[in-house]
Amino acid sequence: MTQTTPNHTQSVAGWAALEQNGKITPYVFKRRENGPDDVTIKVLFCGMCHTDLHHLRNDWGITFYPLVPGHEITGLITKVGSNVSEFKVGDRVGVGCLAASCLNCEFCNDSQENYCEQVQFTYGGIFWDGSITYGGYSEMLVAHKRYVVHVPDGLPMDGAAPLLCAGITVYSPMKQHNMMQPGKKLGVVGLGGLGHVAIKFAKAVGLHVTVISTSPSKEKEAKDRLGADEFLLSTDVKQMRAHSRTLDFIIDTVAAKHSLGPILDLLKVKGNLVLVGAPDKPVDLPSFPLIFGKRMVSGSMTGGMKETQEMMNFCAKHNITCDIELVKPDNINEAMDRLARNDVRYRFVIDITAAKSSL
Amino acid sequence: MTQTTPNHTQSVAGWAALEQNGKITPYVFKRRENGPDDVTIKVLFCGMCHTDLHHLRNDWGITFYPLVPGHEITGLITKVGSNVSEFKVGDRVGVGCLAASCLNCEFCNDSQENYCEQVQFTYGGIFWDGSITYGGYSEMLVAHKRYVVHVPDGLPMDGAAPLLCAGITVYSPMKQHNMMQPGKKLGVVGLGGLGHVAIKFAKAVGLHVTVISTSPSKEKEAKDRLGADEFLLSTDVKQMRAHSRTLDFIIDTVAAKHSLGPILDLLKVKGNLVLVGAPDKPVDLPSFPLIFGKRMVSGSMTGGMKETQEMMNFCAKHNITCDIELVKPDNINEAMDRLARNDVRYRFVIDITAAKSSL
Repeated sequence: MTQTTPNHTQSVAGWAALEQNGKITPYVFKRRENGPDDVTIKVLFCGMCHTDLHHLRNDWGITFYPLVPGHEITGLITKVGSNVSEFKVGDRVGVGCLAASCLNCEFCNDSQENYCEQVQFTYGGIFWDGSITYGGYSEMLVAHKRYVVHVPDGLPMDGAAPLLCAGITVYSPMKQHNMMQPGKKLGVVGLGGLGHVAIKFAKAVGLHVTVISTSPSKEKEAKDRLGADEFLLSTDVKQMRAHSRTLDFIIDTVAAKHSLGPILDLLKVKGNLVLVGAPDKPVDLPSFPLIFGKRMVSGSMTGGMKETQEMMNFCAKHNITCDIELVKPDNINEAMDRLARNDVRYRFVIDITAAKSSL
Repeated sequence: MTQTTPNHTQSVAGWAALEQNGKITPYVFKRRENGPDDVTIKVLFCGMCHTDLHHLRNDWGITFYPLVPGHEITGLITKVGSNVSEFKVGDRVGVGCLAASCLNCEFCNDSQENYCEQVQFTYGGIFWDGSITYGGYSEMLVAHKRYVVHVPDGLPMDGAAPLLCAGITVYSPMKQHNMMQPGKKLGVVGLGGLGHVAIKFAKAVGLHVTVISTSPSKEKEAKDRLGADEFLLSTDVKQMRAHSRTLDFIIDTVAAKHSLGPILDLLKVKGNLVLVGAPDKPVDLPSFPLIFGKRMVSGSMTGGMKETQEMMNFCAKHNITCDIELVKPDNINEAMDRLARNDVRYRFVIDITAAKSSL
């Protein structure tokens, strides 16, 4: 099945899952012509987010096939529309989760496009013209200028790609809940793609960071390589209790069902836990640690475009990128299998230009 | 078993559960002498809170027997200690959930004694002298002046009693989360002891109130008698969806396990749900409505002493009391059975002076 919307005339080589088994195969499809507000991007790198895996396997029951995943995209501008003054051909740019929003509501007006009621995502969304959106597992992308950011000169294009989702997903709540205060104590639950970036952001501004994980093997990594100050094994009840009421904030990045009880107890009174993972089953929220500590559990989903650019600039200033393993397009399925086992440090990034064959 | 702490010399007639079957029987026990910072109170009325039921039956596994419940107490001062200038003999006063706290931490210093790490409750707690605290199902109470409030002249002592727990439990989060803004939209989940007071508080300051309940029978009551503006049946998926993103705040008073998902969807982006019930099993928190709406779930437990007095004054000003059914001490067990079936509008209050026999 290929796109049939009238002005979708540009053939693109990409990689898609055609059905629910989620296997990725080479796939040629059509993209729209570059409109007056669009830019065309030669994709260089695309991160493999855990969300891609959920969508590929239709874990949330919302997948359209064929599915071209990918929303951690970096590349070079090859064409700009007549209304585009923000970008020029050759610019290093990034595209994250967002493809469209209404541009007219209180959230769009405040550059919180991610909370617009009509938000559409970079893949599996429905664009303004009625077409289904295809993501960054492809050699070329057409994007509305509103949803494109500059990649500052200092940042390598491969390690910067996952910042467009993993990075902004933790940066946004850290800013919005005023966590970026030197000396405050932050807990990071789960040391994966999101968690390891959260540690880097926090250490860049001088927070005290405690990593909370179910894997004792991650202690050395968390402390020695990523600079975390403390490590708590969440299964060690005694250790967890000894740290009761010690943290100001927690970012919970775990994408599997779990109980928030023992984690909430780590927070001081009025402390705030932000959930940024999206477990497909509800998490358990026991009322006692919530009400006895007047604590808060907040949600946050990616970020707005203005803060995404701000985050990219922050990363350039502090020399922050994601730790990645580069993958050739032919090896996406193997990488996806490893991703399903959390066997990656910390993000697979597809080197799109390493494709054997192109159009 | 009677209290053996040395200065516990005053015999008091009360009502207690002696074992886990939770049956209440007359029970004579000892209270401490009135110390320099204490007041002695002749108890007139004591509300029957759902928490009493949980404690009587040891639902939370933390009950000491014999248990004298009761933390919604009004009465008259009969004695004051040498350091007490705030109260005099004959004053109309109330005592709520708190019996002691450290008086020296950041929370005590800010009159948020309820979040002090060493807080002790009016019953089933351990007082400074090591004695177990006994509650308001009794003819007399000795309380430290810090944990006593004035009942303003305009308020009837019976209808005011449940304000000391039910009232402050909803008043505190309404104040602290800045809900008291005329015209804002508040959802109240569950129409019981807490819920009906929340409606009264909200209407007194001009909020728009939507009651969310599983019982269609409560619509008429909520709107006609309590003045709620709207009523949503939480089991009516279509009706709930039609009200998505319409509420600024929600107070969830339900004390049974439930899912927060459909309720969270009613909140606007960045809306705040405060959980004030204490279900003994964790509630289900699905991540999608939380993260897609950047919503918050907060906990709150009773209130501090300063805001408890403020709430009593607010009630006097706005002529707010709880709707109650008076119960004689001999009928506590029948009332408790009805309470377990939620068959009460909206609070049983024990008329302590109607006891057949006294000491």
